[in-house]
Amino acid sequence: MIRHPGASAIVPFVSDPLGDDPQILLLKQYRYAAEQYLYEIPAGRLDAGEDPRDCAVRELREETGCTATQMDFLFTMFTTPGFTDERIHLFMAAGLERGETAHEADEFMTLETVTLSYALQLIQKGEIKDAKTALGILFAAGFRAGR
Amino acid sequence: MIRHPGASAIVPFVSDPLGDDPQILLLKQYRYAAEQYLYEIPAGRLDAGEDPRDCAVRELREETGCTATQMDFLFTMFTTPGFTDERIHLFMAAGLERGETAHEADEFMTLETVTLSYALQLIQKGEIKDAKTALGILFAAGFRAGR
Repeated sequence: MIRHPGASAIVPFVSDPLGDDPQILLLKQYRYAAEQYLYEIPAGRLDAGEDPRDCAVRELREETGCTATQMDFLFTMFTTPGFTDERIHLFMAAGLERGETAHEADEFMTLETVTLSYALQLIQKGEIKDAKTALGILFAAGFRAGR
Repeated sequence: MIRHPGASAIVPFVSDPLGDDPQILLLKQYRYAAEQYLYEIPAGRLDAGEDPRDCAVRELREETGCTATQMDFLFTMFTTPGFTDERIHLFMAAGLERGETAHEADEFMTLETVTLSYALQLIQKGEIKDAKTALGILFAAGFRAGR
């Protein structure tokens, strides 16, 4: 069994989540394990002793350059409980303000703004393949954005 | 990076998926990695060279004793592409016929029949924590069962 420190992931809304077809941010990055570019929401591992919410705030800033006035906990998922204790704490961010990204320049990561309805289409068509991303968007859309 | 043969998982509908609040099957099993009982949909690893659909049919039969007249592919998810190539092929089964379970008697696994609306409540409340299970149910509910 593989021990993992856990992670936080964030569905970042760049317009009012309760508005008509709000917009969210998606990262597109090359994943060697998947051997392809994947759409993903911002996410990263907890530092030792770090609170999941603090990690969510930090990862959102590092990966998108944004700070959020609102960071709501959605739920905690086990990625694959048959062989690891990895759990991802999912959050939804709103009231974003743009800033500078903190991570190193990385040619393999781009940031896209898409509407929630388009993101749902990407899930339906199998083009969003990352579990935390599809699950975070479906959860936020179904239970928080009134879709 | 951890190599994984891949797996299939099945959302098993025991009544018409397009009917009014259809019923699905859920397993409840103890997971040592999670240190708790988790609700899960039937799932298991591909045998060497096994087709994902054949695996879905086999796992559904082994874990629930059911055969399905309909086994529709939903999509393929990467469980955690940061550190493994594990992908789970998600299916939706309908037209179930009950039979005998093929797995060994296992006191840590029980089978429950719940309505889709109840399963969605369990996801919303964070009581379904397994990623493939929450994602499979949300996907099937949103894109196939007309919820």
